[in-house]
Amino acid sequence: MFDFLELAKKRQSCRAFTGESIPRDDLEVCLEAARLSPSACNSQPWSFVAVHSPEKVAAVAGCGQVLGNPFLDKAGAFIVLVEEHATLKPRVAERYNSQVFAAGDLGGAAVSICLAAESRGVGSCIIGIFDRVALAEVCGIPEQKNIYLIVALGIPENSETRPKVRKPAENVVKYI
Amino acid sequence: MFDFLELAKKRQSCRAFTGESIPRDDLEVCLEAARLSPSACNSQPWSFVAVHSPEKVAAVAGCGQVLGNPFLDKAGAFIVLVEEHATLKPRVAERYNSQVFAAGDLGGAAVSICLAAESRGVGSCIIGIFDRVALAEVCGIPEQKNIYLIVALGIPENSETRPKVRKPAENVVKYI
Repeated sequence: MFDFLELAKKRQSCRAFTGESIPRDDLEVCLEAARLSPSACNSQPWSFVAVHSPEKVAAVAGCGQVLGNPFLDKAGAFIVLVEEHATLKPRVAERYNSQVFAAGDLGGAAVSICLAAESRGVGSCIIGIFDRVALAEVCGIPEQKNIYLIVALGIPENSETRPKVRKPAENVVKYI
Repeated sequence: MFDFLELAKKRQSCRAFTGESIPRDDLEVCLEAARLSPSACNSQPWSFVAVHSPEKVAAVAGCGQVLGNPFLDKAGAFIVLVEEHATLKPRVAERYNSQVFAAGDLGGAAVSICLAAESRGVGSCIIGIFDRVALAEVCGIPEQKNIYLIVALGIPENSETRPKVRKPAENVVKYI
């Protein structure tokens, strides 16, 4: 079909965007990838705020600069991932808290977004640290909800793929 | 480059495997996709047990049948995802527990495995409920470590793509 590893290798955290906006159809592809991502019991414990109007993009960029990240000022769009109640299958719900798998499911959705973006030539960076109160206000998210991640999207300033820095396979993989 | 949504749509939880084993190079591609997956501060809070010997595959299949899932007896291989200590960047580590982003990172690695498998014609199913003590014993994982997920891999009994059941986009996506 196609070489998934080629895409996985090209996907990298982009911290230098041009400031251009993201075409709406690229944003829609990213959101569709997130919506189709797998989740425990197909519970889909998520909603997404697609931030694309220039004034909202600027406001969300500000919310993401708690610990630096000035590059966010040149992002073209954001997708904000919000944790929602997960309805698990009855036999699972008997034993587990509804939200026990939600973080993993949301993390998977974030990766789906980044890969979809990369496949369209759009750069991405997952942001886990942000001003939650301000972001809830900007996005109209009720304050009691957990905003899990932001994915920053933008046109990369350059298309160079950096070598990936990862622990060697022999240190993290064991065959049995 | 290529149509990522085509892959995301074809990826589905497979619960009917043929019982055939998984070619080693397909398993390696899945593990490489996991290893390259993004993580907070590039902390890579994971290790992977690739289960491919027939006796270990049978033993892990047994560990995954706490709440049903008899189809696991026909899986061809498993990848067990283990949570490891995350070393975050100092400024992040000052404010956050080391493991706060680990669940999302591991969930993303699981999705990377499933997509890589699909790209090779290998079916997958993420299993979040299993006998942790027995699985730690079978895989030689120290009992104090958190086994986060198992991904079952196998050759699908049929290649039909089922329609995806998801909440409608208008219910989970808001543009601002």
